[in-house]
Amino acid sequence: TEVAVTKKPRVGILSSGDEIIHPENQPLPGQVRDINSYTLAAVVEQVGGEAIHYGIIPDTYAKVLETAKRAYSECDVVVITAGSSVSVRDLTATVIDELGQPGVLVHGVNISPGKPTILGVCDGKPVIGLPGNPVSALVNVEIFVAPVVKKLLGEKLDQPKPSVYAKLLVNLASESGRVEWVPVQILPSEDGWVADPVFGKSNLIFTLARADGLVRIDPDATGLSAGELVEVVLF
Amino acid sequence: TEVAVTKKPRVGILSSGDEIIHPENQPLPGQVRDINSYTLAAVVEQVGGEAIHYGIIPDTYAKVLETAKRAYSECDVVVITAGSSVSVRDLTATVIDELGQPGVLVHGVNISPGKPTILGVCDGKPVIGLPGNPVSALVNVEIFVAPVVKKLLGEKLDQPKPSVYAKLLVNLASESGRVEWVPVQILPSEDGWVADPVFGKSNLIFTLARADGLVRIDPDATGLSAGELVEVVLF
Repeated sequence: TEVAVTKKPRVGILSSGDEIIHPENQPLPGQVRDINSYTLAAVVEQVGGEAIHYGIIPDTYAKVLETAKRAYSECDVVVITAGSSVSVRDLTATVIDELGQPGVLVHGVNISPGKPTILGVCDGKPVIGLPGNPVSALVNVEIFVAPVVKKLLGEKLDQPKPSVYAKLLVNLASESGRVEWVPVQILPSEDGWVADPVFGKSNLIFTLARADGLVRIDPDATGLSAGELVEVVLF
Repeated sequence: TEVAVTKKPRVGILSSGDEIIHPENQPLPGQVRDINSYTLAAVVEQVGGEAIHYGIIPDTYAKVLETAKRAYSECDVVVITAGSSVSVRDLTATVIDELGQPGVLVHGVNISPGKPTILGVCDGKPVIGLPGNPVSALVNVEIFVAPVVKKLLGEKLDQPKPSVYAKLLVNLASESGRVEWVPVQILPSEDGWVADPVFGKSNLIFTLARADGLVRIDPDATGLSAGELVEVVLF
């Protein structure tokens, strides 16, 4: 009647970007409401972590470094989402290198969406930079942050992940040599569930809002055919 | 930035049985530790309800009726698990009939394990009697209580349920004409996940403790073959 428990890993979440505004504000041209703080926190809490919000940070080296240092000292994992321009990505990488040794381990991954993802370890503490695009951030928090939280909780990582099998409604093209994740809506049909891809750029919030989950396309495939049974990982 | 929410449905859980003891006590011959209060509460909370424990009740009409009346007045749904003998099942049915109109609607279902399940509605409030066997109780709380909680929350019931696909390790016999649920362990293999049935009577707690989920066998099947891909609903 007693079980061993462990402290919830604290995951600090920083949303950097001059164009990002609080969700309650009305965006002006070129501005975008913060969504990543909330989707990343939801994934972190779903897998058993405690999400700590460090707010929206302006895109300056001094501000991002100052907030990242505070998050680093207070948390077990730090996640920084940044804009997708090359200069901003370099900013995140420079900050990670500044926090501790060895700093950045991986700068860019072969996943779409999510190419600009940065993986780092600073004196034993994981620090991860995610792309600012909402779909990229959500896909890659599942791939790179969720396993870190589970590992810190002492969970085995080789556990089956429940998903829904559905018939693909249309052909899906993909680029060979990289993993692609496609947001889909799941709809009922006489023949069971069907997966209907939600086409839209990964920087558009509605792509997420209209989707129920993601379909993975293997790097050795050049696409998937309509009618194929696909595995949908639900959000 | 605002969402509509609803009150968590309150589900009263009664565990009736003279042989049932608190989990911290050492069972004497013929006694069994209470497990259903905890598994049923876990399922209720997993789907968004609030579980209210009414404790272990002796198998007398007066005691069960008294506690059921209290649960009925304080909760939105009442669930009574009882011993599996015919006399005790009749006790639950009589209590449900006493709580309100029309009372018992279904007395016995074509599901294994779970045949003695009782479904009732008392003046608009669902009251459900589940078998006392731990596996039967868990299978049938998922089938009959979880959808009631979701319905009261205003959820759509035709949503896909994530599951794991695995290759069945051995042949499984089943009785044609009824739905069967078999507890399985999920193990990794070079060829993906395999499902290994946990054989054991539905009154044994270890059958649950060793299993990761359940495989459903359709009523028109007479079993499943080794090597077949089966859908495992995880606990």
